[in-house]
Amino acid sequence: MDMRKLVGNNMGRIRREKGLTQEQLAELSGLTQQYISGIENGRRNPTIVAIYELAVALGVNYMELVKPEE
Amino acid sequence: MDMRKLVGNNMGRIRREKGLTQEQLAELSGLTQQYISGIENGRRNPTIVAIYELAVALGVNYMELVKPEE
Repeated sequence: MDMRKLVGNNMGRIRREKGLTQEQLAELSGLTQQYISGIENGRRNPTIVAIYELAVALGVNYMELVKPEE
Repeated sequence: MDMRKLVGNNMGRIRREKGLTQEQLAELSGLTQQYISGIENGRRNPTIVAIYELAVALGVNYMELVKPEE
């Protein structure tokens, strides 16, 4: 299973559902827009702490970012 | 939530349930015993790919390593 792609797809989908741009998520999470773009494109391998911080910024449980895609 | 501690506690518990030593898990996962010890002691911040590889080595779904402790 390609975990980079899985987390990236989950994050992009949730971010759009929340009506946030990558820049807004970057501001909320304290991470850079480039890093967020890299995660969403499956190019990054985020740590569990970064995933948790992104989930908090998105207002979702961190499990939503790592769960298998439906 | 302290995600380092959560993943570490889950991993230590599952490893012991499987009757594996840290050295055996290191061999199975291709990671070092020191890295595994660091994760179990909450000192490491593993990436989602490392968590997935450890889950495969332990023979469990990766969600078991990140889910909240009961």
